[in-house]
Amino acid sequence: MTRGPDRLPVERRLHGDVSTVDAEAAAVAIDPDATVLTSGFGSVGYPKAIPLALASSSRDLSLTLVASGNVGDEIDVDLVGSGAIERRFSYQSSRVARDLTNRREVSFSDRNASSIGDEVQHGGLVDPDVAIVEAVAIGEGWFIPSTSLGQVPAFVEAADRLYVELNRRQPLELQALHDVYRPDAPPNRDPVPISDPGERIGTAHVSFEPEKLAGVVETDTADSTYTFRDPTDDDLAIAENLGAFLDAEMERSPVFEDAVHLQFGVGSLGNALMGELKELDFGGRDVVYFGELIQDGLLDMLDDGRLECASATSMALTDEGQQRLFENVERYAEDVVLRPADVSNHPGVIDQFGVVGVNSAIEFDIYGNVNSTHVGGKQMINGVGGSADFNRNSLVTVCALPSTLKGGEVSRVVPMAFHVDHTEHDVDVFVTEQGVADVRGLSPVERAERIIENCAHPEFAPELRSYLDDVCEQDNHIPHDVQRAAEWHK
Amino acid sequence: MTRGPDRLPVERRLHGDVSTVDAEAAAVAIDPDATVLTSGFGSVGYPKAIPLALASSSRDLSLTLVASGNVGDEIDVDLVGSGAIERRFSYQSSRVARDLTNRREVSFSDRNASSIGDEVQHGGLVDPDVAIVEAVAIGEGWFIPSTSLGQVPAFVEAADRLYVELNRRQPLELQALHDVYRPDAPPNRDPVPISDPGERIGTAHVSFEPEKLAGVVETDTADSTYTFRDPTDDDLAIAENLGAFLDAEMERSPVFEDAVHLQFGVGSLGNALMGELKELDFGGRDVVYFGELIQDGLLDMLDDGRLECASATSMALTDEGQQRLFENVERYAEDVVLRPADVSNHPGVIDQFGVVGVNSAIEFDIYGNVNSTHVGGKQMINGVGGSADFNRNSLVTVCALPSTLKGGEVSRVVPMAFHVDHTEHDVDVFVTEQGVADVRGLSPVERAERIIENCAHPEFAPELRSYLDDVCEQDNHIPHDVQRAAEWHK
Repeated sequence: MTRGPDRLPVERRLHGDVSTVDAEAAAVAIDPDATVLTSGFGSVGYPKAIPLALASSSRDLSLTLVASGNVGDEIDVDLVGSGAIERRFSYQSSRVARDLTNRREVSFSDRNASSIGDEVQHGGLVDPDVAIVEAVAIGEGWFIPSTSLGQVPAFVEAADRLYVELNRRQPLELQALHDVYRPDAPPNRDPVPISDPGERIGTAHVSFEPEKLAGVVETDTADSTYTFRDPTDDDLAIAENLGAFLDAEMERSPVFEDAVHLQFGVGSLGNALMGELKELDFGGRDVVYFGELIQDGLLDMLDDGRLECASATSMALTDEGQQRLFENVERYAEDVVLRPADVSNHPGVIDQFGVVGVNSAIEFDIYGNVNSTHVGGKQMINGVGGSADFNRNSLVTVCALPSTLKGGEVSRVVPMAFHVDHTEHDVDVFVTEQGVADVRGLSPVERAERIIENCAHPEFAPELRSYLDDVCEQDNHIPHDVQRAAEWHK
Repeated sequence: MTRGPDRLPVERRLHGDVSTVDAEAAAVAIDPDATVLTSGFGSVGYPKAIPLALASSSRDLSLTLVASGNVGDEIDVDLVGSGAIERRFSYQSSRVARDLTNRREVSFSDRNASSIGDEVQHGGLVDPDVAIVEAVAIGEGWFIPSTSLGQVPAFVEAADRLYVELNRRQPLELQALHDVYRPDAPPNRDPVPISDPGERIGTAHVSFEPEKLAGVVETDTADSTYTFRDPTDDDLAIAENLGAFLDAEMERSPVFEDAVHLQFGVGSLGNALMGELKELDFGGRDVVYFGELIQDGLLDMLDDGRLECASATSMALTDEGQQRLFENVERYAEDVVLRPADVSNHPGVIDQFGVVGVNSAIEFDIYGNVNSTHVGGKQMINGVGGSADFNRNSLVTVCALPSTLKGGEVSRVVPMAFHVDHTEHDVDVFVTEQGVADVRGLSPVERAERIIENCAHPEFAPELRSYLDDVCEQDNHIPHDVQRAAEWHK
């Protein structure tokens, strides 16, 4: 197999004997009931032209679509909205996709970001046909991905055929960020050979068997970037509470003596938290980001020289953030590495670096179970993404969110979560604008007491306290009154 | 630091300048509110004399006790029953401990077997004082563990002081089984350097700083061994259904072309399943056990030359099984490796070997959420143990259990689990005596249909079906009627 250059620089976009087709021709060659795997994570780096061509196809399509993370409107609005998608994995991110999922017109299966590549390639999740990926350069048997990696290497290995969208809007310099490493197939899989979050263990390109290539489509379209609201008072209070916790934690353990490895979930709160990190005094320690997504706040920290390095699988940036990145890719690449999600979110690698993982959710219950996907246990919002990877494998796991939503009308601390994405075994610390509940080592009822006292909003704490007092008349390890807990959600 | 021999053979039990004390003297030197970490996993290899001496102490004790797995009656009946234990982690296994936990007279916190060592040493779960471990030999700065490893290396590193119970009833030859490897502290932790389930990467002994040793107590007491019921008709039907699934799965994927790596949860059903493996035709493939506990059925397979090798952290054997092992330790050691639980249950290592993990539970719900710890969501049975390690990280995850209990009066397939230990994102396949529900790639409602059809008992399937039909009138991704689901549990 012809391989691309092992590393930099690739100076042209099209190499060797690679010819291009138009998106409509590519689309029409995809079987109407194909299983299609796409690139895309954090709303960037997803294919745009072929999904649009599929969306406007006059054929009767019933595709299975697998993306490992958040993709843009061309897929989750136009294509999903066209009715062409019968089945959809994994994280979905538009109102259109959400509505179709909740009406069960699209069959949606929600998987963990770390393992969906293996599940597709080895685990029998689907029977893959075609991969469609976005790239900034391509040659015979290799391409260089664009703004995200996600599960691209696994998807390319798993699919029978490959379409590459060569997006001229994405800078060729993005190659400097990528570190492509795909573990061998089990059971002869070696440990991921990484010992430092900033280490590069792979290549800038993804390899593929040249005979798989079914077509290259040229595009020139920007990603859907993120918009974040300005930090609210609650966000800032959460950041302050989190900062106080981190301060104490750095004092507590020799693990944090020289360096702190942090991960933050994506979103407006996550962005605010990353932004507020600047305010924190790390006492001369190295600050390292080992997470899934890089947001604007981290670019600020890199610019200020306050972040040692950042490892992720994608960058969920604002327009302004993406612009800033694009103009300085090679400078940022000195300290930023993008990895496939099976490395960035790898359970064993998260464990190695003793990560402090900070993720948000929809709600948590008094016993420490966390619901991050389904409102009321029923209505899907986005998906579990990589939150379970970090909640399960971080050395210290923090769930951070405002104690209420809808202007204070609804408590996000509830008696019982009716959909559990992260169990009571996984989360160590809860943070709201009200305070910090460090529940490590506590029994369920002790956890409940601390969560109500430290994290619930004063408007709701008395009712939660009264619930807890009443159920504690039971001789149960985890006392419940399900009927009453269900009333709460109404 | 003086180190013990890197490997075999150690021919005496007491080496160098190590003196012994009696258990009462050791017990009285432990602070009344100490945090005590013990060896023990799978009901074997736990300390016996010092716990009994603590149990009969006239002092007013309020100890925190941390064991990484199942220990015997000396701890979970005598010591816990004496009222000396205020707080207890993690898996508990006697009626006495269970009752005290459910009455909340002991504060119980339930952790995953893979990570409790790190949580104790690095994660701030407790502030450890004393480790008490059982050994078959000891010298200056080293000891050789007895019948289990569990989190012994982490606990010994974490504690300020160390007591070693030298149990002369346990054969010195057990050293041949052990492979002690303890990862370095994060964030400078390297990947676990293992590439084959039978590979030895460590030593037969655990090292410790000699000045930590507070005393050696000699004992001569057998472990609490397991008793298993004979396989029931349901067990055999489950084994047959599982066998059919494994047959098809071996055909499906190249991962299983040369070898199949299996893990089975402990218990009478697990033991029956391990026993029935003999009946399965693996088509010339290597059969490898990569799990947490070895039960009698695996010894049979080893004797028949049908098992390539077995890796675990302990052996939950019957009296007869332990006898058989003890008489032939060195022969079994050719194919059996005991590892610390942070290696045997390591998320990344389970992933490397593409394990098919088979675990039981209390119940599962129609959407695929699994409750393995709390009856009705309330009453603790044992603990999560290592089930979440394997359910979360196996390539293919199977939940196997009889569809009913109490002579058919109670369905173990329920509309909604009110305690979730393993989420809908984790389990791929459900097996009961009724059949197999392979839910990979299915949406929640599709899962429910298949689980009801293939796994529920005919006595309960119509009622589950009617529940599903009614809730499916909602426009929800996961339709629920919590009140009605709660009625079901009554």
